[in-house]
Amino acid sequence: MRIAVIRGDGIGPEVVDSALRVLKAAAAKYGLTIELHDVEAGDSALSKYGEALPSKYWGIIESSDAILKGPVGESAGDVVVKLRRGLDLYANIRPAKVYPGVKALRDGVDLIIVRENTEDVYVRAEHMLTNDVAVALRVISRRASERIAKVAFELAKARRNKVTIVHKANVLSVTDGLFRTVAREVALKYPGVTVNEMYIDSAVMDMVRRPQDFDIVLTTNLYGDILSDIAAYVTGSIGLAPSANMGDSKAMFEPVHGAAFDIAGKGIANPTATILCISWMLKWWGGKTGNGSYVTAGEAIERSVLNTLSSGKLTPDLGGGLTTNAFTEEVMAHL
Amino acid sequence: MRIAVIRGDGIGPEVVDSALRVLKAAAAKYGLTIELHDVEAGDSALSKYGEALPSKYWGIIESSDAILKGPVGESAGDVVVKLRRGLDLYANIRPAKVYPGVKALRDGVDLIIVRENTEDVYVRAEHMLTNDVAVALRVISRRASERIAKVAFELAKARRNKVTIVHKANVLSVTDGLFRTVAREVALKYPGVTVNEMYIDSAVMDMVRRPQDFDIVLTTNLYGDILSDIAAYVTGSIGLAPSANMGDSKAMFEPVHGAAFDIAGKGIANPTATILCISWMLKWWGGKTGNGSYVTAGEAIERSVLNTLSSGKLTPDLGGGLTTNAFTEEVMAHL
Ligand SMILES: CC(C)[C@H](C(=O)O)[C@@H](O)C(=O)O
Ligand SMILES: CC(C)[C@H](C(=O)O)[C@@H](O)C(=O)O
Repeated sequence: MRIAVIRGDGIGPEVVDSALRVLKAAAAKYGLTIELHDVEAGDSALSKYGEALPSKYWGIIESSDAILKGPVGESAGDVVVKLRRGLDLYANIRPAKVYPGVKALRDGVDLIIVRENTEDVYVRAEHMLTNDVAVALRVISRRASERIAKVAFELAKARRNKVTIVHKANVLSVTDGLFRTVAREVALKYPGVTVNEMYIDSAVMDMVRRPQDFDIVLTTNLYGDILSDIAAYVTGSIGLAPSANMGDSKAMFEPVHGAAFDIAGKGIANPTATILCISWMLKWWGGKTGNGSYVTAGEAIERSVLNTLSSGKLTPDLGGGLTTNAFTEEVMAHL
Repeated sequence: MRIAVIRGDGIGPEVVDSALRVLKAAAAKYGLTIELHDVEAGDSALSKYGEALPSKYWGIIESSDAILKGPVGESAGDVVVKLRRGLDLYANIRPAKVYPGVKALRDGVDLIIVRENTEDVYVRAEHMLTNDVAVALRVISRRASERIAKVAFELAKARRNKVTIVHKANVLSVTDGLFRTVAREVALKYPGVTVNEMYIDSAVMDMVRRPQDFDIVLTTNLYGDILSDIAAYVTGSIGLAPSANMGDSKAMFEPVHGAAFDIAGKGIANPTATILCISWMLKWWGGKTGNGSYVTAGEAIERSVLNTLSSGKLTPDLGGGLTTNAFTEEVMAHL
């Protein structure tokens, strides 16, 4: 398996290195063939090469099976949006669930945000119309709405059979209206799945008030961005949440959290989200290629993370005293 | 004082009637001259007249000094956005604070969201480009950004001297970039005010994690919509939060909450937000006209609401057992 690795900025290199140590240990134990290829991208690449995602790396990215991406700083928009759109990684899957041993704002939450990943204001078609007036396009298409809706309903079928469509069609009657219409059309093919709808302002509130009620949240790009941060916080810490950007053949895995420059270089960052990205990546690749060793390795990593957390071995963001290194070694010891 | 009254849908008529009873009692006690003019608007007006905001009422609205607006249902976008933009009520002021006697998710919160009220995707310039592709314009202008920033910094000066600019300039570098640039320019004229910036996804999270840190939140229209719901929830209940839509001469006051059709007609809606709208309206009008009786009456209503809440007389949404009527009578008794 060829993996392109973007270490990123801030705590990025720390959490990515931790995750790669776990990956290497799992690869040795379960006999996986892993090739890692470094891609410099982000604020540091921008100042070094004048490009946040230097074009000389595009070949590595295109020829990789998967991408592991650490958090990026100020230039994140130029890195992550380019990767998502350039590789047509149209489904941003962001689970939020409460892990054993972690104090969460709300208990019993287990939901997945299914965020459309290629459109909305993320098309970045922005212009100054005059010196004083700026405009951005918000684009919503039937095709993109349909394929993301299918992802959501397929996931729901394998879970609690519930999809909440989040939009703001009371204001955006045409664009969010289209998204909602298409989602409802797709819903007709899944008669066993209960569908309801919420406006984004209410949905954010309910994500705090009664997050247990959500199973699958299907939404457009920007609302999904906002909802996934709050969902991660509510379930314990944004330091725990992995995410996958799925295309038809390739996928990119990244923690939901940012570069956290305030704690960078201190060795105290929580690598859990990035380690769970590795776990997810291996399970995905094993499922795709039919190679059970990858699935087994991915499951072992996940189990090891859960055991580490539930035995109270925590990094400072969760109230524990472990360094990034010490936590990583705990996870490796449980493998 | 001429007030146009929109009762609205769902629990709208109940909470507006409650607030008007309080207004009438205060007017009698403090010798205010109040003229009320009904305006039918919302879902019921739409089905009756074919227009959510029937044009025959525009005269009443234009000749009023202020508007009291209850929540509106599905057609809210066609009522409230039209009023805000049509009357150029450019500053949406949404305080969130914890009231004594009310159990809040977080204590010690006292912040104000200053939401630009005329632009962003609320310009409602939306089109189907083809049968399958919809587009909406997101408009941000220097003029609108500048006047809302001034409102925010003036408020900050009278409070804790802190403004947090919320945007998503890492993706929307042109539109949110302009908003941020202009806000920073305005900030230069307020050297005593500390300015910081947050992305909307982080801001929503911090609104739950550490809302005490916010004083004034300055933001664009849609982000303000989302932030104000969550801020209201965090400080106790969305049933408590009033808001003002301010123009240069006219203002419209409305609760932040929606029409809550699920509890409509049961007589258990919390009228606090709408009563606080009345209080705010009177204080505003008194300040504007220099007539102290209005200010006194507005303050008396606010004090009475706070006394009622802190003596544990609460509606069901706050864990109490009072009906809308009983709560209203408590407030009137304390006037
Ligand atoms: C960094 C930023 C461009 C990105 C986004 O808005 O998508 C991030 O917030 C995320 O959620 O992955
Ligand atoms: C009803 C809706 C159009 C409105 C808005 O989005 O502004 C409401 O949510 C609000 O915050 O006042």
